[in-house]
Order: sequence, then C-alpha cells, then structure tokens
Amino acid sequence: MPARHPRLDPLADRYAARTHGMKSSEIRALFSVVSRPEVVSLAGGMPAVTALPLDAVGSMIGELVSGMGAQTLQYGSGQGDPRLRERICDVMALEGITDASPSEVVVTVGSQQALDLVTRVFCDPGDVILAEAPSYVGALGVFQAAQARVQHVAMDDDGLVPEALEDALVECRARGDKVKFLYTIPNFHNPAGITLTEERRAKVMEIADRYDLLVVEDNPYGLLGFDREPMRALRARDAERVIYLGSFSKTFSPGLRVGWVLAPLAVREKLVLATEAQVLCPPSLTQYAVARYLDTQPWQQQIKTFIELYRERRDATLESLAALMPPGTTWTRPDGGFYVWLKLPDGLDAKLMQPRAVSAHVAYVPGIGFYADGQGKEYMRLSYCYPEPDQIREGVRRLARVVEAELDLHTTFGAVDTGRFRAVRPATPQVPAVEPITGPASSDQVGDQP
Amino acid sequence: MPARHPRLDPLADRYAARTHGMKSSEIRALFSVVSRPEVVSLAGGMPAVTALPLDAVGSMIGELVSGMGAQTLQYGSGQGDPRLRERICDVMALEGITDASPSEVVVTVGSQQALDLVTRVFCDPGDVILAEAPSYVGALGVFQAAQARVQHVAMDDDGLVPEALEDALVECRARGDKVKFLYTIPNFHNPAGITLTEERRAKVMEIADRYDLLVVEDNPYGLLGFDREPMRALRARDAERVIYLGSFSKTFSPGLRVGWVLAPLAVREKLVLATEAQVLCPPSLTQYAVARYLDTQPWQQQIKTFIELYRERRDATLESLAALMPPGTTWTRPDGGFYVWLKLPDGLDAKLMQPRAVSAHVAYVPGIGFYADGQGKEYMRLSYCYPEPDQIREGVRRLARVVEAELDLHTTFGAVDTGRFRAVRPATPQVPAVEPITGPASSDQVGDQP
Ligand SMILES: Cc1ncc(COP(=O)(O)O)c(C=O)c1O
Ligand SMILES: Cc1ncc(COP(=O)(O)O)c(C=O)c1O
Repeated sequence: MPARHPRLDPLADRYAARTHGMKSSEIRALFSVVSRPEVVSLAGGMPAVTALPLDAVGSMIGELVSGMGAQTLQYGSGQGDPRLRERICDVMALEGITDASPSEVVVTVGSQQALDLVTRVFCDPGDVILAEAPSYVGALGVFQAAQARVQHVAMDDDGLVPEALEDALVECRARGDKVKFLYTIPNFHNPAGITLTEERRAKVMEIADRYDLLVVEDNPYGLLGFDREPMRALRARDAERVIYLGSFSKTFSPGLRVGWVLAPLAVREKLVLATEAQVLCPPSLTQYAVARYLDTQPWQQQIKTFIELYRERRDATLESLAALMPPGTTWTRPDGGFYVWLKLPDGLDAKLMQPRAVSAHVAYVPGIGFYADGQGKEYMRLSYCYPEPDQIREGVRRLARVVEAELDLHTTFGAVDTGRFRAVRPATPQVPAVEPITGPASSDQVGDQP
Repeated sequence: MPARHPRLDPLADRYAARTHGMKSSEIRALFSVVSRPEVVSLAGGMPAVTALPLDAVGSMIGELVSGMGAQTLQYGSGQGDPRLRERICDVMALEGITDASPSEVVVTVGSQQALDLVTRVFCDPGDVILAEAPSYVGALGVFQAAQARVQHVAMDDDGLVPEALEDALVECRARGDKVKFLYTIPNFHNPAGITLTEERRAKVMEIADRYDLLVVEDNPYGLLGFDREPMRALRARDAERVIYLGSFSKTFSPGLRVGWVLAPLAVREKLVLATEAQVLCPPSLTQYAVARYLDTQPWQQQIKTFIELYRERRDATLESLAALMPPGTTWTRPDGGFYVWLKLPDGLDAKLMQPRAVSAHVAYVPGIGFYADGQGKEYMRLSYCYPEPDQIREGVRRLARVVEAELDLHTTFGAVDTGRFRAVRPATPQVPAVEPITGPASSDQVGDQP
C-alpha cells in the first residue's frame, strides 16, 4: 500500500503535460501589492467602472431578475442569447463589420474565453501561433496552456511590421512548422499602446491571403480611440480569413465577463461545441444585462465619457513622463486604449527594478511577461486607465526617481553585479533582434510618432 | 495563390485533433424540439427557478450593482471572491466536509467549468478516466474534448459497484493504462437517479486508497434529498484523495453559473492557473449575488421548498410510470435529485423511438448519450424537475402509448427491419456486459430497492 501523503504535492507526477508549463503571470504576482492603498498602481488594466451610471444599471439589472427570472436565472443556449448576439452585430458595425450575422456570433465569458476556445479548436501541441512582440500576456497564457509555440513578429509605431510577418511565415514554412494563425491586436495594443495603420492593415491582409493565413483579431479597445472614429476592422476586409474577438469589458463592465467571437459558420459550430464542453453556457443574467443595457441605456454616450476620462489620464501620463523621465527612457504614445509601453535606459531591467519601485510605492508590469521567449527585460507596461490623473502624476514622479536611482547605480557600478540591485541570477543581456518601438524621451507631443 | 473558399469548410484540415472528435450531445439536438409549448419535455435538467423569491433576489442584485458597482462590475481574482469561498465552506459542512478552507476552494463558471479544469490539469490524450455506466453527458463531453478515454464501471441500485471498480483498476493496470481519476456522482446520479450507499462509500474509498486512485466527486444534487439528511460526502472521508465539485445551479440558480471545486492546495494552485488562462476570473456580479443570497436570504428554507416541489414531481413520475408503462419496462426510484432512468422492454431502442415520441409530443433523452462506448440504446433519461405534476402525468401517458405502439410493431415484425421504425443503420444488438440497474415495472413503491 503506497504511503498517503509522502511529498508536498503527492500528485506531482500525475498532472498533464500542459500543467507543468503553467506559471503565474507577471500581473498576478502584483495583485497583493497593488491593492495596498499607499501604492499607485500603473500595473492593472482595470477599467474605470465607477464612471458608469451605477444606479440606473442597478435598477435595470434588478428588474431583469424580478421580471424575467425564469429566463435570467435559468440555463441558456451554449452559443449565447440571440437578442444579445443581434446587438453585438450592431456594435461591430461601428468598426465597419456590416455583414456579420448573429448566427456567426458566440457569446463567451469575456474575450479571454474566446481566445481559449479558438486556440483549443485549432491548436495541437507544437503548432505555431504568430503574435506581435510584445503581445497580450493573457493570450500567451492560453497559447502556453495549449502547448502551442509562439513566434513573435516585430512591431513598430505603425503596428505589426508586414515584412517581419512575411519573414516569419517564410521561416516557419522552411522549418515545416504548422502555423495555425496570426494573433493580433490592431487597436491600442496591449501592452504596446500602438495602432496598426490603415496602410499596414491592407498589407497584413494581403500577406494573409497570399500565405493562406488565418487571422485572429483581438479587439477589446477599438471603440476607445481618443482622436478619431474607430478604424475599419481586419474582419471588415475578409469575412472568411479573420476570426474576430470582442468584449464588453472595456466599454461597459469586465465584472459581467461578456465577450464574443465572430467566426465563419463552420468554425462557429466548433466553437459552440467547445464552449458547451467548457461551461455549458455563458451566464444568462450577465448576457441579459448587457443586451438590456445596449437596448435602454445611452451606451454610445457612455463610451464618449470613458474616452474623455481615459484621454485625460493618458495626457497626465505622457506629460509627466516627458517632464520627469531621465534621458534614454522612451515610450509609446497611445491615441486610445489603456497602455503606455516604456523602454528603460540601456542596461536597466524592469523586473529587477520592481522591488525598488514597490518600496517607492509605485507598481507597473515588467515587460518580460509580454513575450513568450524571455525578451523584454528593458520594457514595462504602464496602465493609465484606473488611477486618477493626480495619482498618475505622483506615480510617474515616484517611478522617475526609481529609474534615476537605478541609473546612478548602474553608472557607478557598470555591469558589475553589486548583489544589491541585481537578483540572484545575474541578468544576461538579451537584446531583441528587432527593437523598433521607441519615442523621444523629452517630447510632450502626443499622437502618432514615427 | 490558393483558392479562397474552395470547400464548405475551408478550414477543415486546420483544426486540432481534439476538434474532430467533438460532436453535439443528445441533449442539445433536442433543444429546438422541447421548447415547443405542445411538447411535454422530460428531457432537460432545468431547475424550477420560478420557485425562487424573484422580487427579493431582484432587489438584492440591483442593490449590489448600485451600491457596490466598483466591485461587482470590476474584474476579480481568478480564484474567486473570498467571501463567497467562505460561504461555500459553510454549504459543504452540511455534507460533513468540516475541514475545508476557503483557500482550497476555486470558484468556477458552473461546476461544468470545474470538470473541465480538473480534466485539463490531469489528463493528457490517451489517459483513462473511470466513470459510472451511465455517466453525466456533460462530463463525457469534457473527457472527449481532452482526448481522454473513458472506462465505464457498472452501477446497480446501490450505486457504483465496488467489485466492478476493482476489476476495472486491475484491468487498466494490466493494460498499462494511466488511470487519472474516478469520476463519480454519488448522490441522485445524473442520469441514473441512484445514490451510493453508506457501505459502498466506505468500500469505494478503501479501494481508492489501496490503488492510490484519485476521486473526482461531482455533487450538484447532494442537498436535494427527499427522505433524509444529506449523506456524508466522499471528500469528508479523505481530504487528499478526493477533489470535490459543487454547484449553485440546482440549489439556487443555473443562470448565474456559479460552481466550485475543492482541492488540496497543490492542485488548487494548478486549477487557479488553468482558470486564469481560460476566463481570467469568474463573473464578479454573479459571485456577489450568490454570496449575498447566502448571507441575507433564507436559502436553507428555499432548498426545502425545492425539495417539496421536486418530491411531488418525482411522485407524479413514478406513480404514472407504474400505472401506465407496459410490462418489461423498468426504471430507477430516485430519492432526490432530478432524474429517473428507464429501461425499455427487450428489443426497443430509445433513440430510434425518439421521432415517434416527439410526434406524440413528449421528449426524453436517449440513453446512448450517457455512455462513452455506444451502450445504452435501451435506456432513456426522464427529468421531472421542470414540468408541473399534471404535465408529467400527461407526458408519461404519451410516452407509455409510444412504447406500447413500438412494442406492438416489434412483436409483429420481430427483428425484421421494417424500414419504418428502424433508422437507416440497422440496430446491432449491443447488450452491456453488466446490466444491473433495474426495478420492477409494476410497482408504485418508492425508495431504495435492491
Ligand atoms: C488584448 C486583450 N485581449 C483580451 C482581454 C481579455 O478581456 P476580457 O476577457 O475581460 O474580455 C484583454 C484584457 O485586458 C486584453 O487586453
Ligand atoms: C452531474 C452533473 N455535474 C455537473 C453539472 C453541471 O452543472 P453546472 O455547470 O450548472 O454547475 C450537471 C448539470 O446538470 C450535472 O448533472
């Protein structure tokens, strides 16, 4: 008879192969820290939900339960509420997707579940997914759980670099890799804060066509542009080649966890089977809440309110960075969404610097979490979506002081490991092959930059 | 340049291996049919949510949004709301689980997601899962999506047969199969309506111990017993060997999709990583709703209300079956939960009979969906949870007539395929190796039966 509890994890040898690769994300490790009130968190991507008309939304949802409990508290269909799927088509029309049918939409538990479903439907272990460098940390987690391999494709201030995409495809073909899809975030990229230009969109789709490449377009931020109307989605250019993911997390509420995927019918059918196996059906109440919200509340006006609020925070961020960051620091200039992607002066490491930043009561997400291959040590993501402008200014002030102190140490000790600001494992300098995301450090100009 | 839309599904050759095995469940195929008002549906497992105090629940949830929108509409932790996890421990204490800590609980999107997470964490393709014959169709879907193989273990009116379990383990060992866990539904089994006896529980756990077998205890119905206090959970007998799945779908509301898994800390850690990759976090609003419901509403009294309602419906079902079903038909006698498992007279096939039943305006779920290996043709699942007693009586009356007609045809034409009541593919008689679930057809006695 085997001993009952012989080791710390008596089941360690029973997990699936995929389980051994699972690890906590950089963001999760920060959770306990950023919730302390004295810390200014530029780390999380939490939307400013208190800007919503909470009383109106509250009574709306309360009535949905009192008046329609037989539906809102009951199981629903795996594909999602038909009424909501219709309204989702209206929302997508704002980005030029005018031919979508509710039958091609699957409602998901946030667009995160959409990502997971698409990946499970397409990817066997070892398959390759192309993704921007950097890419959304949550997507990398999904890809890793599916034991897919990520090949990064460079981006610059205009978004994904078409030549780099083509190079990657040629390389993968030569190696015999099975490339299942390109995963891309064309608008207000997480974490890079960059938007794919009109011209690049055409080029990317032309390459996709030429290489018969499937494109997964992840677009939670598309309606949150500060300066102009939403851009035309990739999906608006090709209904067969593009699988589109959307979310109400940033335009309404993430706590309801309502996202969706729009896919050609054959793929949609697979996605429905996959989601039924995973959750049976998405929550009914939250779906009714979103549909009713779109039906009865001024949701487009609310998005404008969010935009003004985020624009102000973006401005506070960029102005403070320009005023306070030491030379050699560069960053992107988002014209929508939640994030600024910052590059530290040469030789600094955002992950190693993190304990100092936390001691100085400011938090960010180190860049390495946004790469599948260990790149990104010199980067960090700053989120301006949640803190108030004054907090943002204070946070950037603290961060600038930390970077300066780090820079002083670095200048004094050079590459010598002092044992004080380097972690146990000495940092091996790992410069990414392409390094195009930059912006002048001492400019307060806002908007697109070469 | 490859042609753009050459085939019906131009992506057919790109799916993952697991996707090719996905197929619609027997239950889903019935969805459109059972929603027609003239059909008495004994098919779905939808709880009677209108028995809830909808006004009270509505204003409770409305207030959660108006008063706590900053939390209820925001992202939460992947593991789930700490307050809810505490209350979940109180709920589990009703089944003798008194040592559970909130830190060992992971909140999931229904217990369906819990099933999926556990399976993903443990199972590689080809791994073996032991499960009762029959077993929950949704679990079989999860196991198939994970490309795990299911080895069925016989059950009788006392539940899982310990000797059959041991035989299966010996067989698997001899074959070199990697058995990852036993999946079992000890209380008011779906679909069999059977409860594992106290004596059997001890035996099953003794075998699990002897063979170092992990047990996944799926228990959505445990508090819905008609005749006595809840039985002691398997998890109450062994905290290390049993992973326990629970749900508020049957005791409160399935439309909120709140379930949970209780697992040893090391496993819990893996489950949290897996759920973060899948959905980031469960919906905040629905978690707060359940926690507040448990905090402020008479939920134990409400469960008693549900029990009375389901008992009445169970009685209507069993009485009608006893009065109306032709000899040779047998069925189980549930003393809790939602389901009766019915065996047709020799030679009849529940799946082939289905179109006739639907024409006669009664629906059930054919038995084959509850087996991974094509068994179960002579069985059907009848759910009494949703229709009113009068509808149930009418439904059973219609069903009895269909069975009688089918029996007449069968007696007249014998094994001859008339082409009228047999499908294209002639039914190959496939008798399960063990066939112990029976009950006298002409008895109206209710309760445990040998
Ligand atoms: C690019 C991107 N995709 C997907 C998600 C997932 O969002 P949700 O699951 O809340 O819709 C996020 C969240 O931050 C994101 O930034
Ligand atoms: C045995 C069993 N397990 C799990 C589930 C899934 O329930 P839920 O995901 O609603 O908690 C069900 C639903 O019918 C069930 O019968």
